[in-house]
Amino acid sequence: MTKNKKVNAAILIIGNEILSGRTQDTNTSTISLWLNSIGVKVQEVRVIPDIEKIIVVTIDALRKVNDYVFTTGGIGPTHDDITAESISKAFNLDYEINKEAFQILEEYYKPGEFNEGRQKMAWMPKDAKLILNPTSGAPGFNVENVFCLPGVPSILKSMLGGLKNEIVGGAPILSHTISLRTVESEIAKSLTNVQENHKDIEIGSYPFFQAGKLGVSIVIRSEDQSQIDQCCSQILNFVNEKKIEVVDR
Amino acid sequence: MTKNKKVNAAILIIGNEILSGRTQDTNTSTISLWLNSIGVKVQEVRVIPDIEKIIVVTIDALRKVNDYVFTTGGIGPTHDDITAESISKAFNLDYEINKEAFQILEEYYKPGEFNEGRQKMAWMPKDAKLILNPTSGAPGFNVENVFCLPGVPSILKSMLGGLKNEIVGGAPILSHTISLRTVESEIAKSLTNVQENHKDIEIGSYPFFQAGKLGVSIVIRSEDQSQIDQCCSQILNFVNEKKIEVVDR
Repeated sequence: MTKNKKVNAAILIIGNEILSGRTQDTNTSTISLWLNSIGVKVQEVRVIPDIEKIIVVTIDALRKVNDYVFTTGGIGPTHDDITAESISKAFNLDYEINKEAFQILEEYYKPGEFNEGRQKMAWMPKDAKLILNPTSGAPGFNVENVFCLPGVPSILKSMLGGLKNEIVGGAPILSHTISLRTVESEIAKSLTNVQENHKDIEIGSYPFFQAGKLGVSIVIRSEDQSQIDQCCSQILNFVNEKKIEVVDR
Repeated sequence: MTKNKKVNAAILIIGNEILSGRTQDTNTSTISLWLNSIGVKVQEVRVIPDIEKIIVVTIDALRKVNDYVFTTGGIGPTHDDITAESISKAFNLDYEINKEAFQILEEYYKPGEFNEGRQKMAWMPKDAKLILNPTSGAPGFNVENVFCLPGVPSILKSMLGGLKNEIVGGAPILSHTISLRTVESEIAKSLTNVQENHKDIEIGSYPFFQAGKLGVSIVIRSEDQSQIDQCCSQILNFVNEKKIEVVDR
């Protein structure tokens, strides 16, 4: 892949606890920010329940239209952890003990503590490649373009670094934010003009409320710094003309 | 719909800022918890970019397999707010000024301040039903089983109450949590037995780390309180036998 190619990813959050609202997902943001930094753009996120049929169908759909798919959740020791078995079915691979994972886990736990529940975490799709876990031993795994990570945010975070050499991104996605003391409707028309002059650049407008005051952050995203600079200067021009206070640029 | 029918919903988060990781979605949890309380279960969440074609295709897919679809984001005054126009296309409806919305907005703003950007927020699919906004004037809207809400969490929250009579749920989804001072692998096998005895009940196991100590929360969800009670008592039985400390029950 050349650095000019756009590289896309999907994130698949597997877990009833996110759908029920009990747990707030934070992994999407962690994975997306990290992928941006290595030139991969997340184009879709899905949250689905711990149901094998749904996991299989969704993995099958996502892996065909994305360069990479990252799953979170469902790789622990309990009955509701069915990601590894579901991924095996999605790829039509045997679900079996991964010897390397078994050895890592056996060494991680004290003698006598490597019980049946923990051994379950060594079961994976045949020939899966391990994703090492510096926090709590149990590795994630990778089959073709699908990377399976745990749901616990601190553990997931600690595993991303080890993936860097496995993911081939395009040009890093750069972004610049201009924050203004205004409301969106005051700048909507001028901002539309800037967007029309730069159709390939992603320009987002996000209202905020901070320290009792309203404001708008304009976020400009692209792989091309010079295009970002051009948009910024056009935005600052109309901001200046309208005498809008710039909070941050 | 009778109270015994299962009622399902999907949530569609529309916004580049969530996909890029810049903004952490909190609306999923807000909407899900509220829907649970009125007997509607969220079975899928998707996050997609501000791209018309993708919004149209996704709405079309979700509305056919869910009783309700809730969208968040993209109904403000700027160029990247394209939800209303996209929903019009998804339903093959004209995209036009909603007179009632126009009047609400005209009254909301001071004379002379109802500019072009703000008027954009009155454009909706033909004959859309309004969802009133007690926080900032601009209403959301509803077409058939699709309900379009804003992305700003505080505004979205303030609009849900007004929707209560529009959504017909089934029996409320009840849940009970038992928190234990243990690790998942210690209880995995016993918990599997409880799940096998109650195949229709959703039993989730979630590790936590609080005040320097590890623990596991077991969450039991069902419309049937007596089934939840049965699961609880079976869980507390094995917990007792294993001499595991109960943190909360």
